[in-house]
Amino acid sequence: MGKVYLVGAGPGDPELLTVRAARILAAADIVLHDALVTQEVLKLVSPKARVIDVGKRCGQKLLTQDEINAYLVHAAASYEVAVRLKSGDPLIFGRAGEEIEALRKAGVDFEVVPGITAALAAAAAARISLTDRRFASQVLFTTAHRKGGAISMDWMRAITPDTTVVVYMPGTAYAELGNALLGRGLDPQTPCVIVACATRSSQQMRRTDLAGLGRLSSISAPALLIVGRVARPEAESIAADIWKQMQTNTLQDEQQIT
Amino acid sequence: MGKVYLVGAGPGDPELLTVRAARILAAADIVLHDALVTQEVLKLVSPKARVIDVGKRCGQKLLTQDEINAYLVHAAASYEVAVRLKSGDPLIFGRAGEEIEALRKAGVDFEVVPGITAALAAAAAARISLTDRRFASQVLFTTAHRKGGAISMDWMRAITPDTTVVVYMPGTAYAELGNALLGRGLDPQTPCVIVACATRSSQQMRRTDLAGLGRLSSISAPALLIVGRVARPEAESIAADIWKQMQTNTLQDEQQIT
Repeated sequence: MGKVYLVGAGPGDPELLTVRAARILAAADIVLHDALVTQEVLKLVSPKARVIDVGKRCGQKLLTQDEINAYLVHAAASYEVAVRLKSGDPLIFGRAGEEIEALRKAGVDFEVVPGITAALAAAAAARISLTDRRFASQVLFTTAHRKGGAISMDWMRAITPDTTVVVYMPGTAYAELGNALLGRGLDPQTPCVIVACATRSSQQMRRTDLAGLGRLSSISAPALLIVGRVARPEAESIAADIWKQMQTNTLQDEQQIT
Repeated sequence: MGKVYLVGAGPGDPELLTVRAARILAAADIVLHDALVTQEVLKLVSPKARVIDVGKRCGQKLLTQDEINAYLVHAAASYEVAVRLKSGDPLIFGRAGEEIEALRKAGVDFEVVPGITAALAAAAAARISLTDRRFASQVLFTTAHRKGGAISMDWMRAITPDTTVVVYMPGTAYAELGNALLGRGLDPQTPCVIVACATRSSQQMRRTDLAGLGRLSSISAPALLIVGRVARPEAESIAADIWKQMQTNTLQDEQQIT
């Protein structure tokens, strides 16, 4: 029996894998990866390994979650080092819970290797402390993923002015999210940053505020939305005139950070 | 003028640094690190570098935050590669916000290199998906850090049964946290996991539930508390009898995961 490694591939830049993750990829016999894992990361995989894309593309699933679970158990029986490679961290908005359960039930030896989740990569790119104590006391990671067509907004209960909100997979729901947060009584001038394709060469960053969120258009996926006072462009150090200009020109693109 | 790198040192195991962080440490001319950064990680620092502990030990600050900010600006003027090394991720419960502001004000070139934050390391050690979609829709990272003696519990407003709560630096406040969460109407049987010294050789893990949280004692620091239905020992796959036993024996230590 081999071992299964649930490995975080990080946000895309292969330099942002952990040392351990890179080592495991180099020793892998088989790798089952999500569609979001970048080619640059896949280059770190041992040339002898089988590499299988089990992810979704354009909403079309290549394998169902049950099939992936079964395949992982099978891989442990057939290969010494079987890797389930998930973009970001495996335990944040992946479906690792179901895979872990299947591995446990089958008595398969496995290990979780953490990764840089998208929120941390986006915050690093935007150079925003998500819990800057002058503006926030906590940070909430949530998602606008649709269940049966409607966005679940239960998490809105969680919002206080000193909570930084990170929305994974906002999709095209910016206006809906903005309106819902305004409806919760948040200040229309609460700063927002959207980071698309964080750490990749295609990285894009946009700054706006809650009032301007609905006017955003054409943002590449994968994207991530940060809402909160911590996202003020330069915190308290920014010159007031630049800050005013940002609020007028809510769609200002920031130059790409390399 | 040199460049300042705000680098995440991860949870302690040097294998859990990012490839980029390890590369920057090997090229460093000066490293200012927190007290929580492990000796194993510091071994990755270039032998030519000056290494300065600017952290707190036993509540005794070695340098004030203002002094650290000033020192960072000074370091950029004197060294090519100046590293501010913070345990976990630099942008989660560090004081990077203030350092970033000081660097911006001084016009210093800087970059943030993300790290594995303690929540992800603890979840990986406990093999818990923090956002397992069967039990949770979001995860809140908060802290029981005391301001002027009393724990701020504002974040309690944020709690819904489908929110996983991760409390950084719970200190000795387990009973207080447990009672406050019970007071918010959470089920007394809501599972809790405490992971101390995650990923280090001294790692310890304890499982209990909200009702049992107050009876915990003698947990090493740094520790982290995970509360939520996702923390059920083996999710739905666990045999009912073992689960019942866990609830009776709330202080069951789990064997160390290596």
